[in-house]
Amino acid sequence: MLAETKAVTMRRLLELLPDKEPRRYLYDLMPAYPSRSGKGLRPALCIATCRAFGGSLDDVLDTAVAVELFHNAFLIHDDVEDGSELRRKERTLHRIHGVPIAVNVGDGMLAAAMEPLLENVELIGLGRALRILQIVARMARESAEGQMIELDWVRATDWAPSDRSYVRMIYKKTCWYTFLAPVLVGTTAAGGELETARAFARFATPLGIAFQIQDDALNLTGDVDRYGKEIDGDLWEGKHTLILIEAVRRASKADRERALAILSKARTGFVPKSADDVGFLRVLIERAGALDYARATARRHAARAARSFDELARTMPRSAHREFLAQLVSFVVERDC
Amino acid sequence: MLAETKAVTMRRLLELLPDKEPRRYLYDLMPAYPSRSGKGLRPALCIATCRAFGGSLDDVLDTAVAVELFHNAFLIHDDVEDGSELRRKERTLHRIHGVPIAVNVGDGMLAAAMEPLLENVELIGLGRALRILQIVARMARESAEGQMIELDWVRATDWAPSDRSYVRMIYKKTCWYTFLAPVLVGTTAAGGELETARAFARFATPLGIAFQIQDDALNLTGDVDRYGKEIDGDLWEGKHTLILIEAVRRASKADRERALAILSKARTGFVPKSADDVGFLRVLIERAGALDYARATARRHAARAARSFDELARTMPRSAHREFLAQLVSFVVERDC
Repeated sequence: MLAETKAVTMRRLLELLPDKEPRRYLYDLMPAYPSRSGKGLRPALCIATCRAFGGSLDDVLDTAVAVELFHNAFLIHDDVEDGSELRRKERTLHRIHGVPIAVNVGDGMLAAAMEPLLENVELIGLGRALRILQIVARMARESAEGQMIELDWVRATDWAPSDRSYVRMIYKKTCWYTFLAPVLVGTTAAGGELETARAFARFATPLGIAFQIQDDALNLTGDVDRYGKEIDGDLWEGKHTLILIEAVRRASKADRERALAILSKARTGFVPKSADDVGFLRVLIERAGALDYARATARRHAARAARSFDELARTMPRSAHREFLAQLVSFVVERDC
Repeated sequence: MLAETKAVTMRRLLELLPDKEPRRYLYDLMPAYPSRSGKGLRPALCIATCRAFGGSLDDVLDTAVAVELFHNAFLIHDDVEDGSELRRKERTLHRIHGVPIAVNVGDGMLAAAMEPLLENVELIGLGRALRILQIVARMARESAEGQMIELDWVRATDWAPSDRSYVRMIYKKTCWYTFLAPVLVGTTAAGGELETARAFARFATPLGIAFQIQDDALNLTGDVDRYGKEIDGDLWEGKHTLILIEAVRRASKADRERALAILSKARTGFVPKSADDVGFLRVLIERAGALDYARATARRHAARAARSFDELARTMPRSAHREFLAQLVSFVVERDC
């Protein structure tokens, strides 16, 4: 189902992008990230949620494309901000075309995403169209807030955020884009009530948190061909993952000081991290049992999502779409890609 | 009137920004550019246009704030993309806080700007609110297209665009933000018809073109204290202005080759431009009479704007707001700041 909705969404995305000049370095680069080997989780969630509530594919497809454009615009900007090297097995956009073009392509995608959301008025009526615009505006705001919290930790070399602060950061930075907004726009496109949207938020929030923690675990243990990102990339970047936060927290005073010195080095700064540095971080993670700790946390959130889904499922007729949503919970914690 | 509307808009902008955590490096930086010493031309245009058509300040103020947020978000991103040093007499945001924070503050401002535009539904009704959203989406798209055309010229060291191509670029990059969108949202907020909006576009487009060319002339001849940007900054940056395009076009073959070699140097690259390089560009400009050429072009566009305004003025009752709009034409070509 992921592969199928990804193909449908990609085809529609290419139709919806302005077919006009200037193409070079703008419209021709907009499909770059969406067409890479991602899972297409967001459009699949938009579509499955809408259809599980009796909406049609047409009710939600353009909205799914808009969410995909918004999300990928932020990925391009995030890659610039985090100095990332790879995105979905290929070089990041700013690595290929430079920061100016990458930032501008992202801005252009945000603009292009607005137009299908405004066309929604004709398609699904004013009330639903406006609620979807509100959800998307909130998603964009939460994402900028989450990114800022993380950038602030990076700037201050702050490795002492509590689990609660960490969860708040990924709630804003990951959950909103990947889980919350897709299910909220999906329910809304199908004409769902506010109460349904709330129940969906109780499902999507813990699921998104479990997803991100599992993603960070895969970054350390995954198979690069299946997972698609650079293994240990998070350690090289010094990304604030629950795993690394836990490892630093459990380290001896001397080890913590050495870890903080390593983590204060920019990836491509004058004094870059060495392979030894990254090896040392891996040792700290093993010693602290931080991977197991993170996986247990992910499973706890996933269990919460499963319970919320059981409640929710009672309000949906049996369908392939409901089944897809039900299987997401185990997919999120068991996936290897 | 500029000073007055700027104060009103700034007060409202501060009220409309989310009053919540996380503030640091996000909400606290959003007012940075708008509060600097700019003229406040855009909000003044929004407000004057709306009021000249009998709308109230309340009908348009939040929209003016949203346009201001959008515009300043793009200024932050443009400064990153162009490697600019100064914005309104102070260091650019990415120079103070780094590229990651600057890019994210811009994204956060785009998100924050959406909310007042959605609230417009309550304030001025659905039809007007939707048309304003469409205008803003178009503005964002045109701006990304204009920026891309310019970035492409920079990448390719292309100094042979025709006057027509140059005007098309600034139509997208400058006119839409500074003139077209403000008058279009102003007319719409006041309940103006599509025909009025079209007539306003015939006024605002040549005015915006005249404005940009005059801005480039000021960059070479202005007083830094009044003008606020770095004098000769455009030459150091190698910005594609009509003046420099004309100077390169009129140069001898040997001079043109030397000019292109200079203009291919990045400002802060391994081989930066020297003061001699910039001096040589100034000599070419003088020899070609490129400043006079550009000013004549600006005056021609301004005259077109003046004629369109005369037509337009017949549809508006006499008011201080109509008077303000009428005076804009001469302000644009005579201003020294």
